[in-house]
Amino acid sequence: MKLYSKKARESKKRIGFVPTMGYLHEGHLSLIRSARKENDIVVVSIFVNPTQFGPKEDLSRYPRDIRRDKKMCVSAGVDVIFIPSAEEMYPRDYQIYVNLEGNLSNKLCAKSRPGHFRGVATIVTKLFNIISPSISYFGSKDAQQAIIIKRLIADFNMDTIIKIMPIVREKDGLAMSSRNVYLSPKERKDALGISKALKESSMMIKNGNLNSKEIKFHINSLLNKRDSLKIDYVEIVSAETLESIDKIQKNTLIAIACFAGKTRLIDNLWIH
Amino acid sequence: MKLYSKKARESKKRIGFVPTMGYLHEGHLSLIRSARKENDIVVVSIFVNPTQFGPKEDLSRYPRDIRRDKKMCVSAGVDVIFIPSAEEMYPRDYQIYVNLEGNLSNKLCAKSRPGHFRGVATIVTKLFNIISPSISYFGSKDAQQAIIIKRLIADFNMDTIIKIMPIVREKDGLAMSSRNVYLSPKERKDALGISKALKESSMMIKNGNLNSKEIKFHINSLLNKRDSLKIDYVEIVSAETLESIDKIQKNTLIAIACFAGKTRLIDNLWIH
Repeated sequence: MKLYSKKARESKKRIGFVPTMGYLHEGHLSLIRSARKENDIVVVSIFVNPTQFGPKEDLSRYPRDIRRDKKMCVSAGVDVIFIPSAEEMYPRDYQIYVNLEGNLSNKLCAKSRPGHFRGVATIVTKLFNIISPSISYFGSKDAQQAIIIKRLIADFNMDTIIKIMPIVREKDGLAMSSRNVYLSPKERKDALGISKALKESSMMIKNGNLNSKEIKFHINSLLNKRDSLKIDYVEIVSAETLESIDKIQKNTLIAIACFAGKTRLIDNLWIH
Repeated sequence: MKLYSKKARESKKRIGFVPTMGYLHEGHLSLIRSARKENDIVVVSIFVNPTQFGPKEDLSRYPRDIRRDKKMCVSAGVDVIFIPSAEEMYPRDYQIYVNLEGNLSNKLCAKSRPGHFRGVATIVTKLFNIISPSISYFGSKDAQQAIIIKRLIADFNMDTIIKIMPIVREKDGLAMSSRNVYLSPKERKDALGISKALKESSMMIKNGNLNSKEIKFHINSLLNKRDSLKIDYVEIVSAETLESIDKIQKNTLIAIACFAGKTRLIDNLWIH
């Protein structure tokens, strides 16, 4: 399975790659637009990767609409849409995985979703090898994912670049996610608390409060006011090591994961 | 860290790659000669990879002679000798590894050397990404390694080919290995029992005995006669799955691992 790489690389074309799980939204489109601007060939993959879902997670009900996705890709000027099957990517005797051993793999989402980043790192390694991108585009909503893929590229000496693009939000502030479609009207309303808490954190920081404990306390109290939200974590960490930090500084990540009903939502504020 | 790949690939040159841990012998040279014949550029890496050694193994005393290795490479027409340091390959915050989960990782040498193939698969992934070989050459003495790397290439969709080359032996039959230098004269003599046992197995098979149990029994009794040998395993398995098989057939591997004193030796007979 080899798409463009050798031929395109030999002809010195730049390949821009946007890996997705489909059910595209404005967040994906913003990545595709950047890829289109900066490359000769744009490849989008659509693959709901089973190895990154836990046994009790939403693999089977993850929203899918390939027909709409294709249309959106075509409109956005995508050259190649790669839609492999699970059987192609993981044949019956499949047995090799990328494992994270360290800080990145026992904090934040890695703690709540054991095995999730093993699945992510494995599929990204496979997709990079198939597509051989010059530049890949990832959204910063999945901040830990972006940090891990940066590390994957460095540790495995991969010859590719990643760009981590800003979070795209609904008009009212909710971070765009394919999973937002799961939300009931009440959950959808309460979910706004997440982006609101981040916005208020940003204000606190701008006003000179750099105390992680106080900011976390404020976020937690805001989230707890919304009945349908159940906090998974609220963390303030170094965006390099994911270690907790006491005082906000450059390259700090304020990361939130919440359940709204059964739907797990994440959002973050990346202080650059 | 990127050696030749992009530039050479873009110019459509074939890159032949021979990864080694140095202390080169005729076995390595046979790989290099094949690489030289079949490629435009030949790259040899010399790296005693710490992650494939167990805590009680011979990492620190593994034989090294870089000056002699370089001379041998130059004589054999190698274009690039890649000799990274351990710190370059595994910087302090290194944390991503290739893990095997399945048959290949709990049989034969994987059972005796926990973590060994995690180290092998990780370093090979890194070297492949750095060197971007068209064809890599591996010796079949390390049969399980060769089988695992084939699987690694398939599972990770790597755009490269491997060739598994025949075992090169000393005149008296001992499979060449950098570790043979450890052997005392008595151990060196007893070690011959290994290749002799494989030769006799081959005769038994040629004479129509396809019974694994009988062949294993014969090998064990031959090896047990040599005082300095301590059997680690004698296995007859499918060269695809490494599952034990009762009756010798196509693509069967007869694999032996023995300690001669403190030195672990392996050898095998690959029935194609």
